Amino acid sequence: MVADKKAPIRVVQYGLGPIGIGAAKLVLEKARSGRLELVGAIDIDPAKVNKTVGEVVGASSDVVVSSDAEKVLAEVQPDLVIHTTSSFLPQVEEQLIQCIRAGASVISSTEELPYPFDRHPGIAKNLDTLSKKNGVAVIGTGVNPGYAMDVLALVATGICTDVRSVTVTRRVDAGLRRLPLQRKVGAGITVDEFNERHERGGFGHIGLVESLRLVMHGLGWPIEKMSESLRPVVAESEVRTPYLTVPPGRVAGIKHTAKAYMDGHIVVSLDLMMYVGASDPVDHVVVEGDPPIDLAVQGGIFGDTATVGALVNAIPQVINALPGLRIATDLPVPRCFLPRISYRTRS
Amino acid sequence: MVADKKAPIRVVQYGLGPIGIGAAKLVLEKARSGRLELVGAIDIDPAKVNKTVGEVVGASSDVVVSSDAEKVLAEVQPDLVIHTTSSFLPQVEEQLIQCIRAGASVISSTEELPYPFDRHPGIAKNLDTLSKKNGVAVIGTGVNPGYAMDVLALVATGICTDVRSVTVTRRVDAGLRRLPLQRKVGAGITVDEFNERHERGGFGHIGLVESLRLVMHGLGWPIEKMSESLRPVVAESEVRTPYLTVPPGRVAGIKHTAKAYMDGHIVVSLDLMMYVGASDPVDHVVVEGDPPIDLAVQGGIFGDTATVGALVNAIPQVINALPGLRIATDLPVPRCFLPRISYRTRS
Repeated sequence: MVADKKAPIRVVQYGLGPIGIGAAKLVLEKARSGRLELVGAIDIDPAKVNKTVGEVVGASSDVVVSSDAEKVLAEVQPDLVIHTTSSFLPQVEEQLIQCIRAGASVISSTEELPYPFDRHPGIAKNLDTLSKKNGVAVIGTGVNPGYAMDVLALVATGICTDVRSVTVTRRVDAGLRRLPLQRKVGAGITVDEFNERHERGGFGHIGLVESLRLVMHGLGWPIEKMSESLRPVVAESEVRTPYLTVPPGRVAGIKHTAKAYMDGHIVVSLDLMMYVGASDPVDHVVVEGDPPIDLAVQGGIFGDTATVGALVNAIPQVINALPGLRIATDLPVPRCFLPRISYRTRS
Repeated sequence: MVADKKAPIRVVQYGLGPIGIGAAKLVLEKARSGRLELVGAIDIDPAKVNKTVGEVVGASSDVVVSSDAEKVLAEVQPDLVIHTTSSFLPQVEEQLIQCIRAGASVISSTEELPYPFDRHPGIAKNLDTLSKKNGVAVIGTGVNPGYAMDVLALVATGICTDVRSVTVTRRVDAGLRRLPLQRKVGAGITVDEFNERHERGGFGHIGLVESLRLVMHGLGWPIEKMSESLRPVVAESEVRTPYLTVPPGRVAGIKHTAKAYMDGHIVVSLDLMMYVGASDPVDHVVVEGDPPIDLAVQGGIFGDTATVGALVNAIPQVINALPGLRIATDLPVPRCFLPRISYRTRS
């Protein structure tokens, strides 16, 4: 094979939490192909600033972590930023604008970004306009939202002549995930605390409604009505995770459901269960249609790794995308981005 | 909702065998949305020529079937042709060129077209050049090749950080499929006849190697070596289908395997079993990677309907594609094309 002569894609990692660290490590690994290069890293955590990425993520890299995003972006002029700082679009709008203004495309894990047009139409419009003006593409993705409960559901309909409804179930053993996710699903708190925090808002899984909207959009179906519910899953017996212990009667996690209606029918139904001790994790898509489709990922899709995968796999697709704010249905068939290194360097 | 004001996509159906009839019927059904219009139909079968499509496919349409492709294409100037005449690219090259020269994009069920660059590089180059010159897109698709053993396998890797191998198994109960397919897999013949016909070539499933190449291409992996085998599946007891009876000891169908190697490893393995009496049909993708993925479509994907679905679902994607000879990995996330009619007209 002739070596790829194209210049490597210059990547900045913006945010070095658990997902950002995973993404940076993966970019460094794939950079051995010559197709990618990690050229900058941004984080505000004083424990990380001024250290090398190598030190922070446990890999080989002399890139120094900086808290000054503006400066990093101006200095290194990346082609693309992997952005992993917050779930909520209003909180990251300025960060995304920084990247876009610096001429970088953005792949973000912000859970409100995979389908932002309804919840944040103003921000969406602004990001779209700015991206087009700067000739870059911006997308929000991850395993969920971005794949397990939306893209996979759409793909399941890809050979149907008709679809009457789509039902997606994702059951995750939160006990195998990182601590922030266990906290996010309320593992260990009382049902009263759960209900109280739920009423205050901002609790539970962010992005389920974004997945719902993405599926409806992908099928070309207008949402006439939508319903959403979030309930605690209560531990029946003690559950221990590497990070915490949930006594029986306490909250093990969430059951988060979102449904979309058309002509009075429930046409898309998403059911997300994330709790510690879930014994039978699965991602399951049932399409009532012609032909009917019953698609399951047995054992489920392991979320932390998969979100890192989704972000990094989007790199070549976003680099080649039309400028603007993009969503999953704008991009080609998702697949692993495997610049040619795996077997060469494997023993 | 505001009605879609765009002009409908003008479609010609080229070929009215079982798949073409299904496609024409589906186009007519979706045409009720105003997004599509069936404007012509081509077939050489004297039993169909000069009849209306309505008569031939059992639906409402006054479009008259013609055997003169050139004339139909010149008269109706379609935006797009659904082409379903033959499995082999050299046999359809001239038909595709007719369509392209008439300024129509093409979605074809020709099994050698989903990845034609290696088997027919000259034809592929020619079609690509002509398509670009005429500003149209051409693609080969269907359920297999085009989805079950290639696109679905790629999608399964979409959230992986690394992939070491992909194994796809498709087990089809050919007894539930149309007669030509049962004949194609050799149902009812003796093992000797099977081996004889296999040696003469052109026997078995067309397109498995195309799927293999598509998966390898999608993962960015060069094929260093490829192996292919076709063996009969022998009936252990009598199998009856609506069309034929297979006595024990006769051929029930095929087991067709294709493998691609990289650095001495089998990295993609496709295993297609199509035989009458298969009791546990399934489409199964196993990704050895991070995270590992075990994805199954329980009961399998029913092929005849699914091929029709794949062809028609590609319509909006091909209309919006960049001109040229396209493959599945160039197109967006596959999903059902559902112009807004289903519930309105359903009781």
